[in-house]
Amino acid sequence: MLEKISNIISNTFPFLKEKRLLIAISGGLDSVVLTRLLSTLKFDITLAHCNFNLRGIESNLDAIFVEELAKELAVKCFSTSFKTEKLAKEKKESTQIAARNLRYHWFQEISARHHFDYILTAHHADDNLETFLINLTRGTGLAGFTGIPPVHGNVIRPLLQFSREEILHFAKENNICWREDQSNASTKYLRNKIRHKILPVLKDINPNMLASFSKTLENLQESAQIISDRIEETSLKICFEENGVTKFKISEILKLSNPKAYLFQFLKAYHFSEFKDVYNLLSAQSGKHILSSTHVLLKDREFLILSERKLSNSSDTLFQILEDTPKITNPIHLNFEEVTEQSAPDKKSIYVSKKSLKFPLIVRKWKNGDYFYPLGMQGKKKLSKYFKDEKLSLIEKQNQWLLCDANDAIIWIIGMRKDNRFDVRSNTGIIEISSQ
Amino acid sequence: MLEKISNIISNTFPFLKEKRLLIAISGGLDSVVLTRLLSTLKFDITLAHCNFNLRGIESNLDAIFVEELAKELAVKCFSTSFKTEKLAKEKKESTQIAARNLRYHWFQEISARHHFDYILTAHHADDNLETFLINLTRGTGLAGFTGIPPVHGNVIRPLLQFSREEILHFAKENNICWREDQSNASTKYLRNKIRHKILPVLKDINPNMLASFSKTLENLQESAQIISDRIEETSLKICFEENGVTKFKISEILKLSNPKAYLFQFLKAYHFSEFKDVYNLLSAQSGKHILSSTHVLLKDREFLILSERKLSNSSDTLFQILEDTPKITNPIHLNFEEVTEQSAPDKKSIYVSKKSLKFPLIVRKWKNGDYFYPLGMQGKKKLSKYFKDEKLSLIEKQNQWLLCDANDAIIWIIGMRKDNRFDVRSNTGIIEISSQ
Repeated sequence: MLEKISNIISNTFPFLKEKRLLIAISGGLDSVVLTRLLSTLKFDITLAHCNFNLRGIESNLDAIFVEELAKELAVKCFSTSFKTEKLAKEKKESTQIAARNLRYHWFQEISARHHFDYILTAHHADDNLETFLINLTRGTGLAGFTGIPPVHGNVIRPLLQFSREEILHFAKENNICWREDQSNASTKYLRNKIRHKILPVLKDINPNMLASFSKTLENLQESAQIISDRIEETSLKICFEENGVTKFKISEILKLSNPKAYLFQFLKAYHFSEFKDVYNLLSAQSGKHILSSTHVLLKDREFLILSERKLSNSSDTLFQILEDTPKITNPIHLNFEEVTEQSAPDKKSIYVSKKSLKFPLIVRKWKNGDYFYPLGMQGKKKLSKYFKDEKLSLIEKQNQWLLCDANDAIIWIIGMRKDNRFDVRSNTGIIEISSQ
Repeated sequence: MLEKISNIISNTFPFLKEKRLLIAISGGLDSVVLTRLLSTLKFDITLAHCNFNLRGIESNLDAIFVEELAKELAVKCFSTSFKTEKLAKEKKESTQIAARNLRYHWFQEISARHHFDYILTAHHADDNLETFLINLTRGTGLAGFTGIPPVHGNVIRPLLQFSREEILHFAKENNICWREDQSNASTKYLRNKIRHKILPVLKDINPNMLASFSKTLENLQESAQIISDRIEETSLKICFEENGVTKFKISEILKLSNPKAYLFQFLKAYHFSEFKDVYNLLSAQSGKHILSSTHVLLKDREFLILSERKLSNSSDTLFQILEDTPKITNPIHLNFEEVTEQSAPDKKSIYVSKKSLKFPLIVRKWKNGDYFYPLGMQGKKKLSKYFKDEKLSLIEKQNQWLLCDANDAIIWIIGMRKDNRFDVRSNTGIIEISSQ
């Protein structure tokens, strides 16, 4: 196994040589074998151990075991301790998910603070097949079947090509000690159920199961690559960026062989889950939209418009402008200047009578019930009606800033329309307000 | 269940209405329930039962049971009987594969002979998951994970959305009798191992396993659709048909993100299995080739050339042409005509001196050691050397016909070069031989 791992590292991970490596070690079989292999191969390793306090005294003994191992190998060891169950309850996560998040977060923190090049974990081929089956039980797509990546950012998994059996065999042959985690034997946990009840049947059916599976993963990864090529190429025709949002041309989406399948690929990174709803949006009324945890997808005439949800959260925010402020730069650029005459009209600036303004002025987003007195029209108009007439999409409405006076009267729908009440009626006390 | 199947048929298989349906029935739970459902819904059904004689008297009792059911429902029933084990041994197939082939072949035969519109089988959701797992144990790719198709040619599977449990529940609730196949309980067979040892664990982990799995299959089918779009589009740039072979431009293949992945997609229908070898062919010497059971893939300078293997098998065949034959049409078209003068030279015809010909003439493929006396050259030349100089590919060489005389002397490399020995040397006895 020493020779095999040495070859694998040379061929698959040649970049590890001479680098500072942080090994995530539980004290269990896999991570202890990984540590001893890399120590023997004279890599520059440091250990990092999390005590999750999930198994009482046993957890503490794991931590001591890892420290002793570090001493024996004369390598440095970082360790930490978490009240995992308490934290999991607070975050309403399962213990296993909470432990996973705590672990990776801490490893990355140590790695950044102490300038490690890579974090190494001891995942092996059995883990990979277990994850495949876990995803199968939950319902998944191709992405759930392409396996644990051997390289993911700065996390490297050098043992992915080894079976649990190979690792165990190496440990026994070399009189390596490790800490047995009794909870691994319990079938209470999902992964253990699959490990103890399903994997043995699959390996009985095909003694070379893991080799076949490795080939299967390679095939599925190749399929994913072809899909990614197709999506990259198609997106050139389908969508474009504009004003910080992404617009998808509905007419082009409908020309595709399977619009729902493509919508999934275009939008999967944005946390949408119900792709039937996304698909139905193609034929929905303009103005309908779907929310994910992070994004909003809006049907707007011939487009689907994707934008971040935080845009809509800023609608409550007010920005005050005190008298004699020459300019503001947040949330947008506005310049205020006293002038003696007006230039030709321009969407980017307005002229107002200084006398008519009550300070502090306010910059804010629109809200329901807003109205104004459009310059050049008789009487007042609801902002919602004005936006509709101007055919603003939901996103554009959310992005639109208003300049109001201290009484919350709208002075300017910035860049669009001035209010009649603030118009210049004499040649003195003229203020030019310009955006950007 | 009656209502659900009625809805499924209306929505998914509306074309079944008023059609002549042949139900493949074993006498087991699934096919008996399918038969009774469709009978109740007043479809035009006929039964077809195969006796595989694998379970002695039990097999005969199955056949009797199906005949009784047909009588009860007042529908026609076809039945047949196979010596399955004997046939399997002869064909060196497993009993299960042999039974499967016999069954589908016979159903199609009955269907064609008696003008049925569709053949119906009773595959259900559990079968689908079992097949997925069987493919997983063998090693597979995306195609092995997209499920049993509900419609495949004239074979329809209306129960694919039902679980085995639902079907059993319906049978018990409606006092339906069926024949229990004892071999289904044995875990000797691969499928039964998966059915009895793995499916229960998966269903224990996720009680809605089959619903999740159905969504998984839909996702994977959509992925397969996108790949198929990409391959169709890419192949426009990569390959073209010429002279009955397909040529792939190596330079274009090498521009793709993952040439091996694309080669698999381009060539998977032609029974190649070792795609690393196929990939290596891209950089191999011109003339190297790989054989599948049906096709040959040849590296020829800047192309990979795909052709059917049967081309090379015809190299032993000789076609005789007797004296005074005006024309032949097999294996190629050749016309023989006495003329009084020669027209301008033309690759499609030659003029020979009748006197010089020894009948019967022969049309054949080239063989090692062939030589001729090229018109316009001094002396003789090996055909292999001539072909090399003319840059013929292996496939083109295999496709090339020669016209020889009774002594096997080459008269004409048809469409390419005439032999000096048969040239016209007087104005009488000229024969024009033309290959249209």
